[in-house]
Amino acid sequence: MTARATDARWLDAAARLSMRARPISYPNPGVGCIIVKHGKVVGRGWTAAGGRPHAEAAALHQAGEKARGATAYVTLEPCAHRSLRGPACSDLLVEAGIARVVAGVEDPDPRTAGNGLARLREAGIETALLASPAAEASLAGYLMRARQRRPHVTMKIAMSLDGCIAMASGESQWITGDVARAHVHARRAGADAILVGGGTWRSDKPRLDVRLPGLEQRSPQRAVLTRGVPPHGVKVINTPEQIETLDAFYLYVEAGANIAASFLSADLVDRLETYRAPIVIGNGYAAVGDIGLGALADAHGRWALEERRQLGSDSFEAYSRLRQK
Amino acid sequence: MTARATDARWLDAAARLSMRARPISYPNPGVGCIIVKHGKVVGRGWTAAGGRPHAEAAALHQAGEKARGATAYVTLEPCAHRSLRGPACSDLLVEAGIARVVAGVEDPDPRTAGNGLARLREAGIETALLASPAAEASLAGYLMRARQRRPHVTMKIAMSLDGCIAMASGESQWITGDVARAHVHARRAGADAILVGGGTWRSDKPRLDVRLPGLEQRSPQRAVLTRGVPPHGVKVINTPEQIETLDAFYLYVEAGANIAASFLSADLVDRLETYRAPIVIGNGYAAVGDIGLGALADAHGRWALEERRQLGSDSFEAYSRLRQK
Repeated sequence: MTARATDARWLDAAARLSMRARPISYPNPGVGCIIVKHGKVVGRGWTAAGGRPHAEAAALHQAGEKARGATAYVTLEPCAHRSLRGPACSDLLVEAGIARVVAGVEDPDPRTAGNGLARLREAGIETALLASPAAEASLAGYLMRARQRRPHVTMKIAMSLDGCIAMASGESQWITGDVARAHVHARRAGADAILVGGGTWRSDKPRLDVRLPGLEQRSPQRAVLTRGVPPHGVKVINTPEQIETLDAFYLYVEAGANIAASFLSADLVDRLETYRAPIVIGNGYAAVGDIGLGALADAHGRWALEERRQLGSDSFEAYSRLRQK
Repeated sequence: MTARATDARWLDAAARLSMRARPISYPNPGVGCIIVKHGKVVGRGWTAAGGRPHAEAAALHQAGEKARGATAYVTLEPCAHRSLRGPACSDLLVEAGIARVVAGVEDPDPRTAGNGLARLREAGIETALLASPAAEASLAGYLMRARQRRPHVTMKIAMSLDGCIAMASGESQWITGDVARAHVHARRAGADAILVGGGTWRSDKPRLDVRLPGLEQRSPQRAVLTRGVPPHGVKVINTPEQIETLDAFYLYVEAGANIAASFLSADLVDRLETYRAPIVIGNGYAAVGDIGLGALADAHGRWALEERRQLGSDSFEAYSRLRQK
């Protein structure tokens, strides 16, 4: 394996590690850090709940004296700015005697934005910025917020083989089975906020919480998109664009046909997750309302299958957006 | 491996071999036969075009003298009835000196129906009738015809992620890509007959032929289900139940929403094949019309995923019927 491929592998591992910080690190990015010396891991860290300590601090703490002369792999460029909550990670890395830092993504935060790596180089540390797809993906919410000032949006649709989300009578419990529904709860636990439409809110009275043992505390903030009478006790937005007002890196949209259509029309879906039960409903409620598609050709080339798994008798598929509308 | 497991494996192989006879063996069942001596294949055969020679005759011809003392694996019980077109296979097996015959399915043809194996036993040949799922599946059309007096029905639906088979404007070319469409042509080549609805026949003017190099001659007979004015030059039926009048073991239904609903309502779909393109249409034509489903619970437990493959950017899934309605 080339040195570059080895570096990419360690960044992949750091990206997987950073998943432990999602979504609890909010409002800080969920970062992963692995410190490697002579091919062995001597320290691992990820951003703690609420954002501190940072991943680098945690990994350095674990490595102790072994950090001296080691390489630190970190999904996001180490921060260059001191704050009341702690020192800058670039300073910590220098103090610990780290010899080399490999980062997966440059931090778009203007207080860092290259300054973190520059400070390391000034201190004589070798640095490398690899364009790491794994690190990029692991920071999708943070980067979306920084670059487009809105959360990363995952839209979930649970449907039958023939694309129905309910019977014509409105009956929709249940289309998918236990395993798929538990998977949805796990996905909720990975979001900072969850959104449904006003109709779903009123008719299904969804709890929208995480009902998985040990993860109950992970239930995300709830929001409703409605132009009608705003319900009580929940954040309300009137248009998909207003998701920028949500305190969230990751928004999970549990879509009925109208919400699905409005988010797709606004081109605000980054990841589309479908659960498909092996049932035929026929003449039911269609999954997606009018998205203003002018011609079939315009529908192609927008979505790439990224993940597929079998959940009991249901099929789960995740599609990522290929291009802007 | 136990002797029984070894037998099952050889029957699996014979079943795969028999696919070469589909659908050209009509009106005879497409049978596969493998002759094995000391663990080695000495003869292979499958039913020839038009039904003769039978698989056993072809395999025995290939084995020649090596058939003496060998075991013949055959997906369907060897026939016991002589005809003008040739001798009975059970007689041929006896003459060739075969020591043992393992069959996967008893022939429901009343002229055989156990008589084939009985005749072999009378001649001192050891026989075994294994309940072979692979052999059963390979003879699905023949067995359906014999047991329920109708062809085996595969229904194909090509749709978007959200279950649409066309835009609201009617535009439907193309939802799926080249690879999926070539796959459809290969599936047509495996059918004796192909059926569409009157609406599709009139609006799309489908050629319904096989456009694959070398398989053009495999284009199946074409039929239209319509209660309206019968089109010219094509077999017409008025109800799904009338598929029993088609000269076919395997019927391939290319369904619009109405045809899909009428076949599903009549519980006349044995295999449901879906092609799903990674596109969202929204507010289009739904894949399946009203099937008279009373409650969601009734929709469950009817379909089992049997095959899944990626065809270019499209997903192919085949579901087999789990139970009668």
